[in-house]
Amino acid sequence: MSAPIHDVFMLFGDSITQGAWEPGLNGFGQRLTHVYNRKLDVLNRGFSGYNTEWGLPVFEQCLAKTSDKNVPKLRILAIWFGANDACIKPSPQHVPLTKFVSNLKQMVDMIKSPTSAHYSPTTRIILISPPPVNTHVRGAALAQRDPPLALDRKFEITRAYAEAVRDIAAAEGIAFVDVWTALWEAAGKNEEALTEYLGDGLHLNANGYSVMYDELIRTIEKEYPEVHYNNIAPVFPPWAEIDWEHPEKSLYIGNDKA
Amino acid sequence: MSAPIHDVFMLFGDSITQGAWEPGLNGFGQRLTHVYNRKLDVLNRGFSGYNTEWGLPVFEQCLAKTSDKNVPKLRILAIWFGANDACIKPSPQHVPLTKFVSNLKQMVDMIKSPTSAHYSPTTRIILISPPPVNTHVRGAALAQRDPPLALDRKFEITRAYAEAVRDIAAAEGIAFVDVWTALWEAAGKNEEALTEYLGDGLHLNANGYSVMYDELIRTIEKEYPEVHYNNIAPVFPPWAEIDWEHPEKSLYIGNDKA
Repeated sequence: MSAPIHDVFMLFGDSITQGAWEPGLNGFGQRLTHVYNRKLDVLNRGFSGYNTEWGLPVFEQCLAKTSDKNVPKLRILAIWFGANDACIKPSPQHVPLTKFVSNLKQMVDMIKSPTSAHYSPTTRIILISPPPVNTHVRGAALAQRDPPLALDRKFEITRAYAEAVRDIAAAEGIAFVDVWTALWEAAGKNEEALTEYLGDGLHLNANGYSVMYDELIRTIEKEYPEVHYNNIAPVFPPWAEIDWEHPEKSLYIGNDKA
Repeated sequence: MSAPIHDVFMLFGDSITQGAWEPGLNGFGQRLTHVYNRKLDVLNRGFSGYNTEWGLPVFEQCLAKTSDKNVPKLRILAIWFGANDACIKPSPQHVPLTKFVSNLKQMVDMIKSPTSAHYSPTTRIILISPPPVNTHVRGAALAQRDPPLALDRKFEITRAYAEAVRDIAAAEGIAFVDVWTALWEAAGKNEEALTEYLGDGLHLNANGYSVMYDELIRTIEKEYPEVHYNNIAPVFPPWAEIDWEHPEKSLYIGNDKA
């Protein structure tokens, strides 16, 4: 059995989160695991293809109850949805904008509401907006499938979902990483130029993750500096700080052995 | 609080484990996190500079007790030490070979012995041998420090620690990944050619991790095929398999909600 020696940084989202450790991409999951090593466990809770409707029951199960013993504290929670919710009908992934908003709010409430079984007032929540979609590239890729598929997303619709995430964050007073705007501006507000950041028109490539990671770290630094990796001490001491004559003095972190 | 929805793949070791998510290296930690996504949580339990003597009390705390509730199962455990234990006196990292062997056995016993508080007969244990050391590169690096340091490791001594790991694995009947031999053979049994796999003479670079990862996956495939990533189902279903009309039917994995 694995003991909860580290608190947790949970990355909850869709394929853009699930793929954030993929070789060659330098994704934000991999980079967070690296910079938070010996401090927080960064957990991959990305679910390819999921929208907030399917994510909601999964999210509930990713959370322990406030009363549970032996479970790690959730120090930071990033929630990144919208890329699939913003699919247009008849896609089964489509979630109406008002439902998307209420689903995201419900996730936030599960952490923030004192009456929630998962109430965790010390958890730092970060909402992330979906990236813009490059409908040229996405449309061409779908048209080449066998059988060919119609375009399933629209540029302006995804933008509306991104803006909704921004509004929820503002209303709830929680941190917001505006990936939509960061990538849109990086591409010079030119949909075709998004190719540099979204290889297939939908998923971030190495350049896209690089922009996103920088925004995320800047946001943590500004909004939640106490959980920036530079401000969390490693759970176990650096080796040069161990008392070499009496290592047990510095190496038992609980109070039952020290 | 974070719920234990995934079982755990724990990577326990020194800096070569701690650095296994470092950008640009394609380390085995990052790659395992990717291939086991939605199946197992791959946890970084690497402690730079640590030997088995300091690792032992840390290891004990990384393990929950068999009787603990709400803790994730330890499905796979990789133990990778020796690179620091094999330091020569007067290095404070030096651990005598016989003590190194008894420390490693004690770690294995903590999992395998029915009388251990951490007994876990279903955990698949993998022992990994330390890489060979390139004393030319390591010596030059230490000589350039201010003040200059003497060489702290010897080629044949590290080899002896690697062989000891192999012998423990054989005696205990557990899987063994022979990184020492894999890198030595990749370098054509030429110490100076190890530079291609160990940038600083000690730590694996991208080429070194690539050789190591392939050996590790081959070992899992052969010795513990039931925990190869291809043979573990994702905890939550792929999105195309969700019952879109009644998503709750497929999305509650426990039995209290279904």
